[in-house]
Amino acid sequence: MSGRLIVVGLGPGNPDQVTPEALAAVADAEDFFGYFPYIDRLDLRADQRRHASDNRAELARARAALEMAAKGGKVCVVSGGDPGVFAMAAAVCEAIDEGPAEWRDIEFSVVPGITAMLAVAAKAGAPLGHDFCAISLSNNLKPWDVIEKRLIAAAEAGFVMAFYNPVSKARPHQLGDAFVLLRRHLPGEVPVIFGRAAGRPDEAIRIVPLSQAESGMADMATCVIVGTAETKLIERDGLRPLVYSPRFFKGAGA
Amino acid sequence: MSGRLIVVGLGPGNPDQVTPEALAAVADAEDFFGYFPYIDRLDLRADQRRHASDNRAELARARAALEMAAKGGKVCVVSGGDPGVFAMAAAVCEAIDEGPAEWRDIEFSVVPGITAMLAVAAKAGAPLGHDFCAISLSNNLKPWDVIEKRLIAAAEAGFVMAFYNPVSKARPHQLGDAFVLLRRHLPGEVPVIFGRAAGRPDEAIRIVPLSQAESGMADMATCVIVGTAETKLIERDGLRPLVYSPRFFKGAGA
Repeated sequence: MSGRLIVVGLGPGNPDQVTPEALAAVADAEDFFGYFPYIDRLDLRADQRRHASDNRAELARARAALEMAAKGGKVCVVSGGDPGVFAMAAAVCEAIDEGPAEWRDIEFSVVPGITAMLAVAAKAGAPLGHDFCAISLSNNLKPWDVIEKRLIAAAEAGFVMAFYNPVSKARPHQLGDAFVLLRRHLPGEVPVIFGRAAGRPDEAIRIVPLSQAESGMADMATCVIVGTAETKLIERDGLRPLVYSPRFFKGAGA
Repeated sequence: MSGRLIVVGLGPGNPDQVTPEALAAVADAEDFFGYFPYIDRLDLRADQRRHASDNRAELARARAALEMAAKGGKVCVVSGGDPGVFAMAAAVCEAIDEGPAEWRDIEFSVVPGITAMLAVAAKAGAPLGHDFCAISLSNNLKPWDVIEKRLIAAAEAGFVMAFYNPVSKARPHQLGDAFVLLRRHLPGEVPVIFGRAAGRPDEAIRIVPLSQAESGMADMATCVIVGTAETKLIERDGLRPLVYSPRFFKGAGA
């Protein structure tokens, strides 16, 4: 008897950025799996059960959720932001792929959410207004030389970049190393946005030129957006400048 | 007397994917500017005014909205998806940058939304589960050789790609040309997802290997996601296969 598993994106943390679709999925489930701060965001009924776990336990959490769904449970796995962007949807798919055949019969669905780079970009103007990429800087899951290769490719090809997992206690150096590398491939005046807790009461948005960007300006909860040579800054009296990447690239229409 | 201008993302078209923040912004504005199908989605009061315009008129629309806000209006510019991703936020910033100095005093904000690639990815599994990029295939705004350079860079560096504006009546060939190019840089079995109207009643999701991907499988309302050599397909009896890009890249943890 197979149950169902739904992976739900709760957005960046502002309750007004949670979709009605996500709320309905939460109301309709019985067992909740997720990293404990995301589970803590849920307003659950007495008959709904919490199975919170630690940050680094994604695959074990996915397997536990699938086991419960395979027994007929109505299971919800929660992610911050969007579950498909460096979050739980891929971990659940991976567990299905490697797990027992009956896990493929589980009714599986994903509810999208506002991912961090969209919330941070909205606060800054329109830095993602042109072609862009999203890169996780964590080398827990891929070697650093692959990350370096991608940073150079993105800078040379003119993609705006959004960095997820820019730093952690176990990895204090990656973001600084990335800035050193990018300064060799991009002009020093390229705007860099540090967006922490966008849309939450403790929101902090900081904009600095690449030449002055430092690892210490970010923590685990920060999404970092690095512009291109085309990205522009609009200064405003008494207001934070706007950052945008023009839709138009020189030479178009040819 | 400066008013205010808010750019609001309405998501991919499913009302359950519109955030409370977006609804509150709509309720609080008096004049609405946007491409007419997005304006048509709004449930406005008798005292709220519609200023719908055509698809290609982004900059003129942005200027008209700013002019009204500069006169004290409470103006809302609506976008489908997220306004910061190939949509109106960049057009408004561009108009502010090039417009009269007083436009910089307008209270300006952006409300993020679920962008198409997140909605399509959710329907397919987790194809954006690893590093990815978003590319507009329209050469109205950038030369085709820049697009080709970015496609090759993204394929070679191992980014999953999401294509916005994949085809239009005026540009029927770009997507097919992109597939021909990508087949030289990626294995033929790489999964390609054609996601049309994700989350709406007329939703259509189709998954084919890159070797069989054709331009005719997409229209203007389609978001196309191209995997990498690492992206995997999970076959399921009687169900659409799941597509995911593993979080782990070989050689990690070194």
